[in-house]
Amino acid sequence: MDKSSIEIKVRGYHLDVYQHVNNARFLEMLEEARWSHYDAYPPKMFIEEGWGFVVVNINIDYKSPAVLGDVLNIQTELSRIGGSSLTLRQEVSVKGTGVLAAGADVTFVIIDLKTKKVLPVEGQLLEVLTRKL
Amino acid sequence: MDKSSIEIKVRGYHLDVYQHVNNARFLEMLEEARWSHYDAYPPKMFIEEGWGFVVVNINIDYKSPAVLGDVLNIQTELSRIGGSSLTLRQEVSVKGTGVLAAGADVTFVIIDLKTKKVLPVEGQLLEVLTRKL
Amino acid sequence: MDKSSIEIKVRGYHLDVYQHVNNARFLEMLEEARWSHYDAYPPKMFIEEGWGFVVVNINIDYKSPAVLGDVLNIQTELSRIGGSSLTLRQEVSVKGTGVLAAGADVTFVIIDLKTKKVLPVEGQLLEVLTRKL
Amino acid sequence: MDKSSIEIKVRGYHLDVYQHVNNARFLEMLEEARWSHYDAYPPKMFIEEGWGFVVVNINIDYKSPAVLGDVLNIQTELSRIGGSSLTLRQEVSVKGTGVLAAGADVTFVIIDLKTKKVLPVEGQLLEVLTRKL
Repeated sequence: MDKSSIEIKVRGYHLDVYQHVNNARFLEMLEEARWSHYDAYPPKMFIEEGWGFVVVNINIDYKSPAVLGDVLNIQTELSRIGGSSLTLRQEVSVKGTGVLAAGADVTFVIIDLKTKKVLPVEGQLLEVLTRKL
Repeated sequence: MDKSSIEIKVRGYHLDVYQHVNNARFLEMLEEARWSHYDAYPPKMFIEEGWGFVVVNINIDYKSPAVLGDVLNIQTELSRIGGSSLTLRQEVSVKGTGVLAAGADVTFVIIDLKTKKVLPVEGQLLEVLTRKL
Repeated sequence: MDKSSIEIKVRGYHLDVYQHVNNARFLEMLEEARWSHYDAYPPKMFIEEGWGFVVVNINIDYKSPAVLGDVLNIQTELSRIGGSSLTLRQEVSVKGTGVLAAGADVTFVIIDLKTKKVLPVEGQLLEVLTRKL
Repeated sequence: MDKSSIEIKVRGYHLDVYQHVNNARFLEMLEEARWSHYDAYPPKMFIEEGWGFVVVNINIDYKSPAVLGDVLNIQTELSRIGGSSLTLRQEVSVKGTGVLAAGADVTFVIIDLKTKKVLPVEGQLLEVLTRKL
């Protein structure tokens, strides 16, 4: 399957008053994983030339606390391709135990940064998003 | 209705490469609004004495970009009370135009910080969460 | 004196593993105070028209921990005007007790966003930075 | 020399309105590098057993903007050992060009988390901080 994964070690600054990784921080980790998922494509393509990756919905389940010293494994996989939007499935689990800390469906569109219009998911764009190019 | 609201002005550090408020930053703003929603109750009650406010799901729609200088109005309202979990409806709109930037359903449980067990939503806890105490 | 102040209440997401406000978070709070200090001037002037506020040095002393529920008072004052750089003195104290949590000297330049050159501190720019316009 | 280094790739969420890495975000990157510098020692030693790593001063020069796609190399080295405080020298440079983006002196103390007293830098503590243990 076309799945990518990264690892992030939980540090003191990721935690909040409950001593677990903060709910907003998980979203930042998911974003890091998405940039990594498409890392083979230059930022130039996505930013300067005009494709904007715009998140339209995130549905995230927080299943189990992630704590100091945990090494988190974040897996990312394209799970749905629509005519104009797509969904990435992202799961964060603790390395070693495999316990799921969080699972999210992240739905996004690609816009033309100049016209701000949503681009149809086809041709070269589809190939890049499915990492076939 | 038992709705609260706060205002946050969009600053340069809230933005990302797309020059709009970053998706994770919105979650931090929603958390700020939740703390404010229950601000009449001392942190001591929620933290030191033993009630942990633990988010189990966030389903957020990003509807329209929020940009530098926008004053965001964030409204928070308890929208569902279950036996063990509750849901807050939170909406972020741009002051002046009223345009909705983001809308989220945030589902949470209250745990006993010592035993880590989920507490039933009843009695004094219910009164605090519905802000009737 | 030409001093401004803002208040920020310490929330659960500001804390780190030590249960005090994280060192990097203080810098975000100082940046919030700087935007507020120049809030009478539209972002358009600073961003779109071409003045970039670029920090070149921050020297910050962390004096005392800020904890959950503290209301922080952040004072900002222009303390030095040089030919090309300026320094803001910013102090964060706990409301009520007045205990100093952090004190920082923030040195910055204003650049022309198009040419990336540092602008001389004179004329209209000087009047804006000293808040006399 | 006893120098460690890590790499962090600049992503869209690290940037601010000026399209460069935000000043506060650099501090988070430096903190990541400090955790990494002492990664051979378990969090248990530093947190649960009672050594608190408390930053008392950061003096950071922002030398050159870091932008989207840059791979940052962050070097950390113990540069001063005092009786009660120590200083780490941390430098952030852009991989490939070697251009210095930021350089910081981070002064810290180790406190006993129970008594909140500053510990003298000697014995086992000194060996850990100099990474000789």
